[in-house]
Amino acid sequence: MKTYLECLPCMMQQALRAARAATDNEPLQKEILNRCGELIREIPMEATPPETAASVYEIVKEISGNQDAYKKQKEQHIAEAFKLLPDLREKIEASENPLNTAARIAIAGNIIDLGVHSDFNILEEVDKILDIDFGINHFEAFKKQASKSDWILYIGDNAGESVFDRLLIEQLGRKTIYLVRDQAVINDVTYQDAVDSSLDEVAEVKSSGCPSPGLILDQCNEGCLELFKTAPMVISKGQGNYEALSDCGRPVFYLLKAKCQVISEIIGVRKGDIVLELRD
Amino acid sequence: MKTYLECLPCMMQQALRAARAATDNEPLQKEILNRCGELIREIPMEATPPETAASVYEIVKEISGNQDAYKKQKEQHIAEAFKLLPDLREKIEASENPLNTAARIAIAGNIIDLGVHSDFNILEEVDKILDIDFGINHFEAFKKQASKSDWILYIGDNAGESVFDRLLIEQLGRKTIYLVRDQAVINDVTYQDAVDSSLDEVAEVKSSGCPSPGLILDQCNEGCLELFKTAPMVISKGQGNYEALSDCGRPVFYLLKAKCQVISEIIGVRKGDIVLELRD
Repeated sequence: MKTYLECLPCMMQQALRAARAATDNEPLQKEILNRCGELIREIPMEATPPETAASVYEIVKEISGNQDAYKKQKEQHIAEAFKLLPDLREKIEASENPLNTAARIAIAGNIIDLGVHSDFNILEEVDKILDIDFGINHFEAFKKQASKSDWILYIGDNAGESVFDRLLIEQLGRKTIYLVRDQAVINDVTYQDAVDSSLDEVAEVKSSGCPSPGLILDQCNEGCLELFKTAPMVISKGQGNYEALSDCGRPVFYLLKAKCQVISEIIGVRKGDIVLELRD
Repeated sequence: MKTYLECLPCMMQQALRAARAATDNEPLQKEILNRCGELIREIPMEATPPETAASVYEIVKEISGNQDAYKKQKEQHIAEAFKLLPDLREKIEASENPLNTAARIAIAGNIIDLGVHSDFNILEEVDKILDIDFGINHFEAFKKQASKSDWILYIGDNAGESVFDRLLIEQLGRKTIYLVRDQAVINDVTYQDAVDSSLDEVAEVKSSGCPSPGLILDQCNEGCLELFKTAPMVISKGQGNYEALSDCGRPVFYLLKAKCQVISEIIGVRKGDIVLELRD
């Protein structure tokens, strides 16, 4: 997916949020906005949004000196998600279609990073998602592909959401390799976050080599590229990975919540819809 | 009011909206965003938001060559507002407190420019505002000051909203000078828009000399400054005028809907609240 003009003001909003998370120094926050403003001319519109976002977050790191602005928030989200784990596992096991319920819960996790802070609200979001229709629903293909795949490549998105991914991996019951970002960027899941989410108990956690907030294949290490090429099934979580991979040329199951107008129109759903889409 | 860091991404959003209204040429739209991005470093944060916005809209005009990007939209809003005039006048005359109802309707007009297009929705908004509480309500002081003022200086905001201003001017029943922007900027009311709104039938319409989307006194002509200094009562419509005048040092009655988080916090109301505030 290319970068749209709408993405540029959105990048500036992200820059401000990240600047404030990274430093309390207001002149530095302003300098981050200055530099990101100047970056706009340099952005190739044919690049994917996560590539563009990566440049923004590089500027935040360079100017603030803070390499992991969302560290505390990530720890908090993982801790909050863990508290819900027993109840959610119970919901899955009691449901008529445990795999479908686990997929919905994994997508619900994609919401946490939007700033829902109390346990009560997270649970409310989960309950909502358990009942609503998918904007796109390729669940039958998802189930079928999982049943005939020896192993699955699972591309993680946010820390916290990662705990919910564990529940889906349990239900899939297949050997799973869980790909994470190579370094901290926004609140995306890194190796340490994945281990803190106990994903190493149900999957082999590997760094993709990619430092951007979306799996940009050009930035991945050789090992990741080989896995991506050979995996009998690939599951991609979240909007950033969709933006990076949607034109990759191999079948991928995308699980996400459509969080902005641009992506909603591209996918052909309404903003806020949950999506389980197989793209070839 | 100074410019806040939040205003900068918002300026970029405004730049994109205005760029699209001004031209269909996508490379020119991108060039507008490039230039507005570069502008961020030059923005003095102690300047008021309308001063900053004025620079953005200057860039839009210069690059697109379109001096009045919202011309058609303004004409449409004025025409839509006119259709509602008889019903609204009836509502005012049938109400227990016609001046209060007219003030509410004038504030409701401040909503039109947010993109509510059908008559039905505008009417719905008006009905809503007739029933809700003000976030700040200095109506009694407003009524008292009007009753003892020989004449009133009324600072207009948006085209379309201007038609609703006529209803308040009728109820005030005082000689009124209606100040407008010196040239087209966003969908702010100009001399021609005010005449098209029939305001010349109930007030003397004058240009402030100010081309910014808010009455910046440093940019006003001598005549406007004299009026502003000597008026026994000043009514200021909308957020842009509030941003420009809130520290001006003379009593002004501000009628507006708080449309963003920054201004809501400054005024001390919730986002979306309607406000009738006397500031000394």
